[in-house]
Amino acid sequence: MAVYTDISDDELEAFLAGFDIGAPTVFKGIAEGVQNSNFLLETTGGRYILTLFEHMVREADLPYFLGLMHWLAEHGFPSATPIANRSGDILHHLNGRPAAIVEFLPGLSVRRPTLQHCRGCGGGLAWLHTAGEGFPDHRPNDLGQAAWAMMFAPLEAAAEALKPGLAATINADLAALDRLWPRDLPAGVIHADLFPDNVFFKAGAFAAAIDFYFACNDAYAYDLAVCLNAWCFEADGGFNVTSAQALLAGYEDRRPLTPAERDALPVMAWGAAMRFFLTRLADWGAARPGALVRPKDPLEYERKLAVHRAAHDSGGLILFRTSA
Amino acid sequence: MAVYTDISDDELEAFLAGFDIGAPTVFKGIAEGVQNSNFLLETTGGRYILTLFEHMVREADLPYFLGLMHWLAEHGFPSATPIANRSGDILHHLNGRPAAIVEFLPGLSVRRPTLQHCRGCGGGLAWLHTAGEGFPDHRPNDLGQAAWAMMFAPLEAAAEALKPGLAATINADLAALDRLWPRDLPAGVIHADLFPDNVFFKAGAFAAAIDFYFACNDAYAYDLAVCLNAWCFEADGGFNVTSAQALLAGYEDRRPLTPAERDALPVMAWGAAMRFFLTRLADWGAARPGALVRPKDPLEYERKLAVHRAAHDSGGLILFRTSA
Repeated sequence: MAVYTDISDDELEAFLAGFDIGAPTVFKGIAEGVQNSNFLLETTGGRYILTLFEHMVREADLPYFLGLMHWLAEHGFPSATPIANRSGDILHHLNGRPAAIVEFLPGLSVRRPTLQHCRGCGGGLAWLHTAGEGFPDHRPNDLGQAAWAMMFAPLEAAAEALKPGLAATINADLAALDRLWPRDLPAGVIHADLFPDNVFFKAGAFAAAIDFYFACNDAYAYDLAVCLNAWCFEADGGFNVTSAQALLAGYEDRRPLTPAERDALPVMAWGAAMRFFLTRLADWGAARPGALVRPKDPLEYERKLAVHRAAHDSGGLILFRTSA
Repeated sequence: MAVYTDISDDELEAFLAGFDIGAPTVFKGIAEGVQNSNFLLETTGGRYILTLFEHMVREADLPYFLGLMHWLAEHGFPSATPIANRSGDILHHLNGRPAAIVEFLPGLSVRRPTLQHCRGCGGGLAWLHTAGEGFPDHRPNDLGQAAWAMMFAPLEAAAEALKPGLAATINADLAALDRLWPRDLPAGVIHADLFPDNVFFKAGAFAAAIDFYFACNDAYAYDLAVCLNAWCFEADGGFNVTSAQALLAGYEDRRPLTPAERDALPVMAWGAAMRFFLTRLADWGAARPGALVRPKDPLEYERKLAVHRAAHDSGGLILFRTSA
């Protein structure tokens, strides 16, 4: 949940005077996204989400994120279109922070995805990948494989505090991932954070993706691996192969994987688990008393890492070695 | 802001099966109220607020609060009607907590009330008082004058920590308030917490009151005094007599005060400042690291207390001694 910065009625009215979307009728902080402050904004003209970008997002990256959302919506993908003000800008400023207004998308996210939801997620991800083709801007994945060793260096003590012996295990993982990581897979725009709370469904079908504030250019298979980790593990820590097959099948309905991509999935999933383990470990250590957001448990992704490590050591999960 | 308890899509669907309001289409935690978890709920049938009552609210009081909201709405006052389930109940249970669904009210609250807003607040409060006449249930004000000395006893050290010498000042205030407090003023249902964030305006006019979870039976003039403190102080700590006159004029348009009520306002305002000072001081001391709600600064109400104390010592604010 997140509302870090408050906006008064006066500030809102002055801000909206620059837009052609009518007068505000409803304005409520909402618990959506963990990096930014989000508000439900209704006006005489429509329904919107107003986002204030907090310090966790680099302002220089915002034109990429907002430009991508605009591009995707223009290319038929169901993501929220940023609303331009009277000067035609989609990146604004409010209360000393960068801000954006995007259209409101209805839909419910799911907590415990069924097979149907996993299949829908896969289809939505492939749709996103194909809709993003041709997007002219480029943002390297600053949380990608090349960054992990540097991210972990200051966190060794935190890892040991979490679980004795973990620092050595992670360092061995990082060396293995660096050695095994494929660097020539099909790549393009990826969401990089398509967790269940960032996907809306309507009547069981994929309806929209939100929160593009980790989007970047990287391997499509890596994005798929992020989803496999986020959607296909059971609450007890077991990897649900049937869910994974449904997710992959949904993906391949829209964009068939190359043999190289399919072969790469085990190491991609291992690496995707590493990326979320590392940021959760960093957030865990950095949480301040009184903070309005509870950090997520890094041990969840430590367990997912262990599953993929063991699968690799035993020759890769059977799932990823055969065509579904 | 408050979302203390999360609700999954499965839990929501199972819960809504008991109602006749359609299938959910939007469900978002919202930053409204500080005592409970609140969610925007949209269904194929309408728009609602779903509230989970956390431990800060006594379950035994909920029938009073929800019954009052139902009564007020039935008597034409713009407050949110609780929605009955198929069995006719308005108090439900979800995730081990008492829960209610009320209709969604559009409207914006204001941060810095203008004279027009103060007048609207006064009118809304008088409307609430008259609409509540005849409500058959009764709840004593457990944060009223009779409770203050007991509330302060365990907080003396906290008061001293806030400001050396404050404990003695507060104890002297409590003795004076006990001596001066009028106990035979016109009484009935009061909101008891009608701060600007609990009032919605539309086009500058009073549109609705929300958050009835402090409502009780007490003197109407005390409710008015709560509003005078909440609406008529400037950011610099000064009491704005013009705002207060506007609030009183708005009130008297709908319900003229008796001479005894008007005479009582200075001591009522002093006492109303005491009530919020005491609960803020208690919340301040009890705040846990990692809590999702920042406690409000008790010094804001310590300063308001000082204003009313000084006004009393110099014979009462002129405002309260003349007819507006």
